[in-house]
Amino acid sequence: MSEPSAEVLQELRQQLGDDGVRIQPDAVLPDVVLRPQSTAQVSAILKICSAAGQPLVPLGGRTGMANGHYQTCGEIGLSLERMNAIEEIDPDNRTMTVQAGCILQVAVEAAEELGLLLPLDFGARGSATLGGIVATNAGGNRVIRYGMLRDMVLGLEVVLADGTVVTSLNKMLKNNTGYDIKQWFIGAEGTLGVITRVVLRLRPTPSSQNTALLAVDDFPAVIKLLHWLDARTAGTLSAFEVMWPDFYEYITRDGSLHRPPLPHGSAYYVLVETLGSNPAVDAENFELVLGEAMEEGLLADAVLTHSQAERNAIWEIRDDVLELFKLGPIIPFDISVTLDVMENFVVDIRAAMNKLPDPICVIFGHLGDSNLHVILGSRNHQAFDYDALQQLLYDIVEHYRGSVSAEHGIGLAKREQLHRSRSAQELQLMMAMKKMLDPKNILNPNKIFAAETIAAA
Amino acid sequence: MSEPSAEVLQELRQQLGDDGVRIQPDAVLPDVVLRPQSTAQVSAILKICSAAGQPLVPLGGRTGMANGHYQTCGEIGLSLERMNAIEEIDPDNRTMTVQAGCILQVAVEAAEELGLLLPLDFGARGSATLGGIVATNAGGNRVIRYGMLRDMVLGLEVVLADGTVVTSLNKMLKNNTGYDIKQWFIGAEGTLGVITRVVLRLRPTPSSQNTALLAVDDFPAVIKLLHWLDARTAGTLSAFEVMWPDFYEYITRDGSLHRPPLPHGSAYYVLVETLGSNPAVDAENFELVLGEAMEEGLLADAVLTHSQAERNAIWEIRDDVLELFKLGPIIPFDISVTLDVMENFVVDIRAAMNKLPDPICVIFGHLGDSNLHVILGSRNHQAFDYDALQQLLYDIVEHYRGSVSAEHGIGLAKREQLHRSRSAQELQLMMAMKKMLDPKNILNPNKIFAAETIAAA
Repeated sequence: MSEPSAEVLQELRQQLGDDGVRIQPDAVLPDVVLRPQSTAQVSAILKICSAAGQPLVPLGGRTGMANGHYQTCGEIGLSLERMNAIEEIDPDNRTMTVQAGCILQVAVEAAEELGLLLPLDFGARGSATLGGIVATNAGGNRVIRYGMLRDMVLGLEVVLADGTVVTSLNKMLKNNTGYDIKQWFIGAEGTLGVITRVVLRLRPTPSSQNTALLAVDDFPAVIKLLHWLDARTAGTLSAFEVMWPDFYEYITRDGSLHRPPLPHGSAYYVLVETLGSNPAVDAENFELVLGEAMEEGLLADAVLTHSQAERNAIWEIRDDVLELFKLGPIIPFDISVTLDVMENFVVDIRAAMNKLPDPICVIFGHLGDSNLHVILGSRNHQAFDYDALQQLLYDIVEHYRGSVSAEHGIGLAKREQLHRSRSAQELQLMMAMKKMLDPKNILNPNKIFAAETIAAA
Repeated sequence: MSEPSAEVLQELRQQLGDDGVRIQPDAVLPDVVLRPQSTAQVSAILKICSAAGQPLVPLGGRTGMANGHYQTCGEIGLSLERMNAIEEIDPDNRTMTVQAGCILQVAVEAAEELGLLLPLDFGARGSATLGGIVATNAGGNRVIRYGMLRDMVLGLEVVLADGTVVTSLNKMLKNNTGYDIKQWFIGAEGTLGVITRVVLRLRPTPSSQNTALLAVDDFPAVIKLLHWLDARTAGTLSAFEVMWPDFYEYITRDGSLHRPPLPHGSAYYVLVETLGSNPAVDAENFELVLGEAMEEGLLADAVLTHSQAERNAIWEIRDDVLELFKLGPIIPFDISVTLDVMENFVVDIRAAMNKLPDPICVIFGHLGDSNLHVILGSRNHQAFDYDALQQLLYDIVEHYRGSVSAEHGIGLAKREQLHRSRSAQELQLMMAMKKMLDPKNILNPNKIFAAETIAAA
């Protein structure tokens, strides 16, 4: 890896001051990290780096799961940590304008104070920044109700590779004036521009929450149950999380931290939740609909929660992914497949895993969004083979025309798998976009596409 | 305007057969219209036209409001009318795959037969095709609940200017594998590629519908009422349509086809509707919430509907836009402004109009989406001045940082207004995209941007 030149560093220091340049050697993250305080400074940085051909990695909370924030070729880090203001919360238009370095939890709490909901939630909420969240089109726990991040962004400010500032801080729900350029940058993982400001759409805060854990006998019933509930809880279904028995029964095994709310032995365990606006009526309807589903034979057993503690207990089972690391060395995969093939997809994975020594195969996920997390590994450290497990899983994803990345993006970690989910024509089109917006390939190079691949395209 | 050359026509005829080429001279639409039957034929057409530099206008239902389907420089028409199949409805994944020429109403009815909802509805439903609807990112009557067309598209197939077919028929709700290229083409009005197939997301069909007409005393109360209802009808609010008195009182005037459900004399009339899943409970809650809103002073009067006939009567008032043409020569404008400035925006328009002779100024719209329709004209045919009215309205839109096109797009009709809503940097970026994807400017040239503007950029 080449280092940034002394001249470039000198120029950057003049722009940003000593406080704006941090140097700390690191094995994976960039050694030199710039800390601009304004969009103008980001623009100045990009002009300097563009002229010098100096590559950059935009840095948010560094919580990404696809290593999109790693250095690969002597990149300078461009951290938005000092651009973290909430510039405005507009209660009339129900929008929030934040700088890219603002941390998710801070934004969520600021909206809450005004009785509004920023409906985005996932584990890294205390570290992830909105710039990174937009750049990776994050998902999380309530996508079924509120959509991905893309559905929450009304406006963006982006600095292009050459330093051009494109300010497009739209607050209107409808705006068909030419190409919707913000869409180009959402989910582009910092490879097409540096996001500096974001306008987010806020929602009314729900006043009721109903949660249940259900046992279901077979997969066709799981699909029917999803549609049944969605149709009978109009617009309020906010979670439909499925745990295969290997997940549920391990997390709630004897001696674990969790008591099983439903006995072991079922084929599927489903956590369902609605977020509504009428506590009494919603609770009654929730119970009624689940009762009807049981009469229809769509579910075998159910536990409804009647307190926040009970609700938390169920969510803690679903969220205790770290516990799985006690099984042995594992890889957590984040993939999508369509519901019609999902059952066979899982059967095929198990069959392939069962041919390996001491296999670990645990499956759960946001089934309402077609998104599964597949945990593969071996109880035998010697037998654990990272490359072989990746190959095994992604071969099956490709066979079922699934997505190698449901919500974590491509970054560095999944770059070699991208062709499994995208055609040659799609990849060509993406690379053409990259070349147009970043002809010197200085913005997060080697992420999504290797520099050589782009050069050869 | 130049004509297509005899050689090009001959080549096209060889590809498509005589049936595939229709010639009918027309003042505004292209004289030569191609009628491909497959994506392969669309690709062949684009290869021929690209080689010859022959421009094309993609044609759907020709119902666009921004003249995006007009000829400007001897374009050939590329009609998708024979590619109108519903290829698949997938009830497990709740998706529908259609060819671009499929008419909206046909698709809606096919989904209905399987108990599913394609939640898109507007006046031209019987003619508009899904290719055109995607290309213009159509909105309509239920955007507040289900979003714009962009929110309903999961996958696309597009043919690029050089004939490359990009098939990206994703059906998964979560798929973060590289750039989301379908977003580039949605709303691009056929200037970046020809849409040939679409995967649409379907929803459960609502089983309850509650509709009311409300009278509100002032604009701050209108905004509060929107937020009040949205918070108390979780996820089910599907319409919040506001009529200023000039609209409501004219449409329900003595001697008109419509009886006024509420007496004249209020400051604002609001049509609200929810689409839910629990007929008995939803009706009760709807009445309760409106009662509470009245106690809070958010509304002055209300009429709830108790039959489909009563519901239709209210919607027919809102939808009877054609009646306004009886006032005199008028221009209907489709714009957005944010809610915080909307009241002043309307005050300014009225003040400016009142300086003109015999003014007509009628305002209504999808307020829940920040989208107003502003109808301006003169009762005096001699005094009607198209250019002056455009100038007057768009000056005020620009002053309030509004959008010159909320849902109708730019096409030819609003091209000269685009700069009022988009910065020079945004326009440069759009033109760079256009040049990249269509370097010879053969795809719907002169729409969104004039050919000379792109050439000079």
